Amino acid sequence: WKLFDVSWSTIHCKLISYILIMSRQLHARRIEGVDKNIWVEFTQLAADYQVVNLGQGFPDFSPPSYIQEAFCKAVNGGCSMHQYTRAFGHPPLVTILAKFFSKVVGHDIDAFEDILVTVGAYQALFCTFQALVNEGDEVIIIEPFFDCYQPMVKMAGGKAVYVPLRPVRGKALTSADWVLSSEELASKFNSRTKAIVINTPNNPLGKVYKREELQLIADLCIKHDVVCISDEVYEWLTYDGAKHVKIASLPGMWERTVTIGSGGKTFSATGWKVGWAIGAGHILKHLKTVHQNSVYHCATAAQEAVAVGFQREYEHFGTPESYFLQLPERLQHKREKLAACLESVGLQPVLPEGGYFMIADISSVKVDLNDPSTQGEPYDYRFVKWLIKEKGLATIPVSAFYSPEHSKDFENYIRFCFVKEDSTLSSAEAILRNWSNGK
Amino acid sequence: WKLFDVSWSTIHCKLISYILIMSRQLHARRIEGVDKNIWVEFTQLAADYQVVNLGQGFPDFSPPSYIQEAFCKAVNGGCSMHQYTRAFGHPPLVTILAKFFSKVVGHDIDAFEDILVTVGAYQALFCTFQALVNEGDEVIIIEPFFDCYQPMVKMAGGKAVYVPLRPVRGKALTSADWVLSSEELASKFNSRTKAIVINTPNNPLGKVYKREELQLIADLCIKHDVVCISDEVYEWLTYDGAKHVKIASLPGMWERTVTIGSGGKTFSATGWKVGWAIGAGHILKHLKTVHQNSVYHCATAAQEAVAVGFQREYEHFGTPESYFLQLPERLQHKREKLAACLESVGLQPVLPEGGYFMIADISSVKVDLNDPSTQGEPYDYRFVKWLIKEKGLATIPVSAFYSPEHSKDFENYIRFCFVKEDSTLSSAEAILRNWSNGK
Repeated sequence: WKLFDVSWSTIHCKLISYILIMSRQLHARRIEGVDKNIWVEFTQLAADYQVVNLGQGFPDFSPPSYIQEAFCKAVNGGCSMHQYTRAFGHPPLVTILAKFFSKVVGHDIDAFEDILVTVGAYQALFCTFQALVNEGDEVIIIEPFFDCYQPMVKMAGGKAVYVPLRPVRGKALTSADWVLSSEELASKFNSRTKAIVINTPNNPLGKVYKREELQLIADLCIKHDVVCISDEVYEWLTYDGAKHVKIASLPGMWERTVTIGSGGKTFSATGWKVGWAIGAGHILKHLKTVHQNSVYHCATAAQEAVAVGFQREYEHFGTPESYFLQLPERLQHKREKLAACLESVGLQPVLPEGGYFMIADISSVKVDLNDPSTQGEPYDYRFVKWLIKEKGLATIPVSAFYSPEHSKDFENYIRFCFVKEDSTLSSAEAILRNWSNGK
Repeated sequence: WKLFDVSWSTIHCKLISYILIMSRQLHARRIEGVDKNIWVEFTQLAADYQVVNLGQGFPDFSPPSYIQEAFCKAVNGGCSMHQYTRAFGHPPLVTILAKFFSKVVGHDIDAFEDILVTVGAYQALFCTFQALVNEGDEVIIIEPFFDCYQPMVKMAGGKAVYVPLRPVRGKALTSADWVLSSEELASKFNSRTKAIVINTPNNPLGKVYKREELQLIADLCIKHDVVCISDEVYEWLTYDGAKHVKIASLPGMWERTVTIGSGGKTFSATGWKVGWAIGAGHILKHLKTVHQNSVYHCATAAQEAVAVGFQREYEHFGTPESYFLQLPERLQHKREKLAACLESVGLQPVLPEGGYFMIADISSVKVDLNDPSTQGEPYDYRFVKWLIKEKGLATIPVSAFYSPEHSKDFENYIRFCFVKEDSTLSSAEAILRNWSNGK
């Protein structure tokens, strides 16, 4: 035992510290199981292969010139635009948001009590879950859902309870054909239910909830004293006359709804990261507590620019100069273009009533997914990776928008983003047609 | 019982639902006790009374022109500057941060593994606590401390353990005279200790930790397997030749330190909200998990501008053109100006070795704090409110930077911020001298 010129006690000491270090876990338990992220994975893949990108949901064009100019002006606007502003929202922004949305919701919104400006709608969602969800609380999520709801609920210690929209009949041609079963939905509410998350217009499906559908949800929220978290970031983007209804405007719902909006989606400026939560002051004050202990201020100049944008929209509301009319008109055309192309190559699209996205059924196309690196992954993941690597076109697998218990049933869809320049859509079209012709 | 034409069962039902609603708590437990915030309170007060503001820590001058121009250029730089960038940091920014700080730390920093860009240093702190602190973990905080550490630790379920810097001898003239007791510090470490937070240069005191002081902390961190969270947002602002040392550069500390930095403090642009955490990839990956579930992206154009700023600083490092030399030179002069004024009116300043702030002893001035609305509040809170309301000058009470158990001992100090235009400092001076002459 003296062969190796170290004493037992030295070995013993080193071993003990090694075990101590190894046995102690570095990370907090709250982040277990929320480390995987589809956007990190697929955005990286799209970048690595330099593809035509109909994946992530952002425009590949610029915001309207008047709001770009407002941003420039703010950046050149002297010292105060470069320093902190009010923690819960730049005063000019909350003032115009209150004025604007008071009209839309039909409720008098207090700029300083009922609004929190956040780092994008994403941070508004985070603040909401952290503020309201306790260990063991249940949160109902309607599938398919924007994927972040699930890890955010989990990080807050809550339990996600899922209820899927299901296509009616054999073949659903538009997002309106995907509906909730009222019995199934009602069965998910119980005394542990703290909140329900809805997303209208929905990502990835494009469903725009009708008033009757929202009323059903509202009735259950009121009956069971449940908060409604309504993610409405695509609120101005509806097609074929579909009408976006705010659930907060239904009787009895203002008091129990947090409505989440996005300057980035509204003005095609996702990189500005200006979003907000709007709701009754007695709820919003708790979101503010989370905000003041996590981010505190949002960037001043971008808030100033979004305020200018809303002021202009307020003045032009309902007129042809309104970007809130111009953008959906422009997108309606892009939607037709993409749908026609998908149909022609045998990828049956579900026509969205709203939003940025279109899902398409891939079950009728047969491809040889011979990539051993994706073995064992869901079919749509494998298909999307094949499309990136072999064809140079990025999309997103739709089963990522489902819970583990339901994702198996929805592995035959992929999501296309169509808030892209016509030239980008044409490049995608060329790829798809080439592939189709080569089959 | 039938007098009121309602049945017992109706009353019973209504009563039950009322009790149910009232008994169910809206907010999550994690935000209990973290809703009060000194910045919300005193910033509002300063705004209400339209005072000369030496309160909150932000410059009332603009960032250097070259970085303002970089921001403008980014905002005018075409579509991609208006859309999402990489979730964990805009590639040009993490690339130059890695290059720059590799030199400073003396460790090869990986741009894509070891750095997370955040919405200001504030969100970097939040991500760190959420990623590493479990229910019941202890986190050592050195007093006086930037106030957000405490609620952030609490929100993560941790327990803050405090150890104060104490002035040596009867009268401490500079921040270097405030020191830790090594025995007291060592006594706070135990098997439940997960992390220690240090802040150098310190806010509010201005202390710049010497290498020996940091070595003491490092030794304890290594001995007890504790993570060091080092808030270094004022790293370039040191005076009289005081040298800022990064604790991550001490032997064995890179692996266990998260260093937090701020573009806002670095470039006098607090409203841009660009900060970062730098540390070993095995720690940083957990911060990224929190980030991707709370904020996801940071604003693109501001990151681009900060990248340009660091590129320029990299090229001019150590030369008179470097803003990292120019700003402390400019502030050194402001520090002298403020210190001389305070001394002349009998408010003994503690001369800071670094940072934006100067604390001053108010125990020798006698004022009649006859405001019934502040009755029962700590003496420095009452004094600061009196100074705002009666004299039109905003500062911050220093006991806000102490734990409840030690705040009583430090109620005789108030904090002045001197990162202000000379004209602002002159206005403050006039107020103080007028008051002094009138006594």
